[in-house]
Amino acid sequence: MRNIAIVMEYDGTNYHGWQCQPNGITLEEVTRGAIARILDHDVKVYAGGRTDAGVHASGQVVNFHTDRDIPIDSLQKGLNSMLPEDIRVKAALEVDPSFHARYSARSKVYSYAIVNTPFHSPFHFRYSWHIPYRIDSNIMDETIRNIEGEHDFSAFKKKDEIYKSTVRNVLLAGVKKRGDFIYVVIEATGFLRYMVRNIVGTLVLVGTGKLSKDDFPAILASKDRVNAGPTAPAKGLFLRRIRY
Amino acid sequence: MRNIAIVMEYDGTNYHGWQCQPNGITLEEVTRGAIARILDHDVKVYAGGRTDAGVHASGQVVNFHTDRDIPIDSLQKGLNSMLPEDIRVKAALEVDPSFHARYSARSKVYSYAIVNTPFHSPFHFRYSWHIPYRIDSNIMDETIRNIEGEHDFSAFKKKDEIYKSTVRNVLLAGVKKRGDFIYVVIEATGFLRYMVRNIVGTLVLVGTGKLSKDDFPAILASKDRVNAGPTAPAKGLFLRRIRY
Repeated sequence: MRNIAIVMEYDGTNYHGWQCQPNGITLEEVTRGAIARILDHDVKVYAGGRTDAGVHASGQVVNFHTDRDIPIDSLQKGLNSMLPEDIRVKAALEVDPSFHARYSARSKVYSYAIVNTPFHSPFHFRYSWHIPYRIDSNIMDETIRNIEGEHDFSAFKKKDEIYKSTVRNVLLAGVKKRGDFIYVVIEATGFLRYMVRNIVGTLVLVGTGKLSKDDFPAILASKDRVNAGPTAPAKGLFLRRIRY
Repeated sequence: MRNIAIVMEYDGTNYHGWQCQPNGITLEEVTRGAIARILDHDVKVYAGGRTDAGVHASGQVVNFHTDRDIPIDSLQKGLNSMLPEDIRVKAALEVDPSFHARYSARSKVYSYAIVNTPFHSPFHFRYSWHIPYRIDSNIMDETIRNIEGEHDFSAFKKKDEIYKSTVRNVLLAGVKKRGDFIYVVIEATGFLRYMVRNIVGTLVLVGTGKLSKDDFPAILASKDRVNAGPTAPAKGLFLRRIRY
């Protein structure tokens, strides 16, 4: 059996997230359907990150198995001709039989885009969170450093979501300003659900002065979701990269 | 009567162009509707450039008249709260009673975006023409210089469109490469319908080697639409700026 990995880019606006579910079209079913039609057999697909509804990806990694001998380039071209325009396969490659897009991942990089302008541009509203008031990206950058390292991220988890462990290891976290855009970038070995969006929602309260920068580590240490800020909207979030 | 000008940005994907017409929703009717609801009286709106179906704008200028004394900032905010997210009012200002968005314009700047990558990104497919094969932007830049100055642009007009004069004055024309993007920028005192898209369609044939760079001025001189290349798709075209 061949084990094939593909790197995907998608606009999540029109999908109910990655994972198959009964109430709406998902990226998993569209991707699996396209692969199955090309290979002419059913497949299971494994995604590196199961992005939530409305979340985008520029570096999602997916693997699946087949015994068909279709050349890898033809497979990629075929998939791109079959997939809707808001989903693209950027690369396709043969990988070791033991490779698993999720379990083999060493870390994932998410980035969150904020646009800080008086009005949200028609060309960016699908891909960013619009903050029209003054926001200090430097204090956000200082503040987010608190999440680097191993921490219990219960304060930033999705309400009512249950985990064996809520400890996660953040390798790198920072905030960069590029023109009117502010990017929050977090690399971690794993994430809790809504973790990035809850961190961003809280960080924006610091950036706009509604919380002090000392409140943030206190919220993290409290391990209680009720102390953190609102969940930032899905449309600003991008799964940028998965490292193996 | 106050004369008010607004600068608009819009994603033209979901509209049948600027100008009102029976077969689909247009930017003109949506804009006029929003203004009329805020002013509580019917208005005529005059646009600097009547963009075709699917064409975008980052600097459309529109003017209208009112005797209402609503502050200009409230008008802008009100419009943005009423308009769909793919249309924004970037600025609003009081202008001289004699100002007319179209007739007062000294020149207009259009830019056309081409993406030269193996696969079209889900984040760009609405806003660019995808050319997957090798394309030489330098030769395109050399070639487009031929249109600068006053010329009869019949070779690049919309088929069957009738004009009193097909002579237009191009002030500036150039091709720039920025990463995977190629931008064709044309500033002229006036344009024929489809002129930019027909020039771009022909220019791409030069860039990909299907035409030589000497063919281009010959096509322009022929004044015959049948000699030019195909019309480039609307989605790559942006009305960037109108100068007064």
